[in-house]
Amino acid sequence: MTTDAKILSALRANDDGVSGAQLAEQLGISRAAVWARIDELRKLGYDIAASPHFGYRLVSAPDVLHADDLLARLGETKVIGRDIRVFEETTSTNDVIEKLARDGVKEGAVVFAESQTKGRGRLGRKWVSPTRKGLWFSVLLRPELSPQETTQLTVASATALRRAIKNVTGLLTDIKWPNDLLIGGKKVVGILTEMSAEVDRVRHIILGIGVDVNQDAPEFPVELRKIATSLKAEAGEQISRAELATEMLRQLDADYARICSGKFSLVADEWEAGCATIGKNVSVQMGTRLIRGCAEALDDDGALLVRTEHGHLERVIGGDVTLEK
Amino acid sequence: MTTDAKILSALRANDDGVSGAQLAEQLGISRAAVWARIDELRKLGYDIAASPHFGYRLVSAPDVLHADDLLARLGETKVIGRDIRVFEETTSTNDVIEKLARDGVKEGAVVFAESQTKGRGRLGRKWVSPTRKGLWFSVLLRPELSPQETTQLTVASATALRRAIKNVTGLLTDIKWPNDLLIGGKKVVGILTEMSAEVDRVRHIILGIGVDVNQDAPEFPVELRKIATSLKAEAGEQISRAELATEMLRQLDADYARICSGKFSLVADEWEAGCATIGKNVSVQMGTRLIRGCAEALDDDGALLVRTEHGHLERVIGGDVTLEK
Repeated sequence: MTTDAKILSALRANDDGVSGAQLAEQLGISRAAVWARIDELRKLGYDIAASPHFGYRLVSAPDVLHADDLLARLGETKVIGRDIRVFEETTSTNDVIEKLARDGVKEGAVVFAESQTKGRGRLGRKWVSPTRKGLWFSVLLRPELSPQETTQLTVASATALRRAIKNVTGLLTDIKWPNDLLIGGKKVVGILTEMSAEVDRVRHIILGIGVDVNQDAPEFPVELRKIATSLKAEAGEQISRAELATEMLRQLDADYARICSGKFSLVADEWEAGCATIGKNVSVQMGTRLIRGCAEALDDDGALLVRTEHGHLERVIGGDVTLEK
Repeated sequence: MTTDAKILSALRANDDGVSGAQLAEQLGISRAAVWARIDELRKLGYDIAASPHFGYRLVSAPDVLHADDLLARLGETKVIGRDIRVFEETTSTNDVIEKLARDGVKEGAVVFAESQTKGRGRLGRKWVSPTRKGLWFSVLLRPELSPQETTQLTVASATALRRAIKNVTGLLTDIKWPNDLLIGGKKVVGILTEMSAEVDRVRHIILGIGVDVNQDAPEFPVELRKIATSLKAEAGEQISRAELATEMLRQLDADYARICSGKFSLVADEWEAGCATIGKNVSVQMGTRLIRGCAEALDDDGALLVRTEHGHLERVIGGDVTLEK
């Protein structure tokens, strides 16, 4: 942890304040150095009160993403979030982390951007990422899976993010296969899973995650208003992006651990319980082929099992699923 | 086609010689310009005779790879080899073409290197690539396949390269699942198939191909002598690398066309006919798991079907296969 992360961590652990002398001792630096760092944090927007009696006290944190702050909030995780980087603007966080992946960065690294100029969704679609309004981030993983098994990660990421949203905002989301999260039929979270692999061996997986957090409804582009919403619009209040971000990393870490220890079936059960697709009539566009039928269940590896009008069961591993009315 | 490619093409089409005036007319350049290009080709090692009576005549081509020459020899193909680049030395041709792929280069592009400093094999192994002794090249493809279907390309590439070797050298090779080519149990060709994909959609595939062509047996590192051989060592004569390279591209193009038009089963039949693994007892190391049994057949998608000692059929999509004695 960096000095800033340690200071923020100590301030959060001591609501009533902590003295400069205590901080200096804990951190092994001078009181003047503590003061200098506090001053820097204030410049970033952290409201830190100082009084002779109570010492330093964190009054409020700004709604910006700050790598040290995220690390301090996150606490211990097994894999995900031990290396966090925040960019003010990137083309796409998936591009940034892809480069890190090829440079040999360890799995669990996370890249956030306050805005993306070329955010991407599934099937080559554009993802709108307005500055500081949402969470636009990517997670690097290096699981021991074959390319055929990576659907597990798609399912796990939806489950983990759904839990994180419930924990932080109280909002219940519906999972739309494979991994969109919806509220009232409108999308709030999209996940793009990209991989680099040999035919039989995954090199790395990148989970690219977009969460619409603090947009007001009118801020969405006209063409998205009927199909997208934000957590703020649904909850009726501003959401702390830093709190949500760290809870998402924590829950992703937990579900990744479940997959790596062979407990995908637990994840799949939770996924099915939260899934709005199961039991519904769907149409699935797979390339040029259109399948219609009832989405009956999730297969062992995360594929969607669709009972067609002709009565036979189709395994759907990709494509574009639409819920029929 | 570049001017050099057109000149070489015209020389090859006219064994008895072609006059400078004819060349100049065909190419739409001056006779002095023709002479200048011929001079450059000679510097590259092309032995081009010139006489007042017969004009220019190609006596011999050097054993170097020259992009224009390869293009001229190749002729028309559907997809593969319409863009050929040759490097004197690279880390790995897969690395070079991966970069081209991300820059949006069209499928079918091919990168050759006269030597590689970091040639790679399957499962992270090193591939030894001595200068001008073999063919070290990579092919970029953008097929409309899911990651689950890419085994088809692995199978097709082995089949195509086997045919090319037979056509050029007369040598018969055995296919070892999934795509090594062996002669007398020793490896002459290795293929590394890498992909970049979403969970349900391939972005691009890179076929990385290594062919041991003109090494003499004692040139192999001691640790490889029992398991590797070259086409020259087996055929007893020097092989034209340029001729072999273009025939390989031609056959890869043909099999890629078969896959893209949904005729994978034809490729699979040819693969099985040339495969030394089918009908043999094998052991397969898949991660930490060891499977033993008889390799019965190839599955629809290219997976190896192994009947285990316990009588049930295992689908093997990857891992390390060893033929048991």
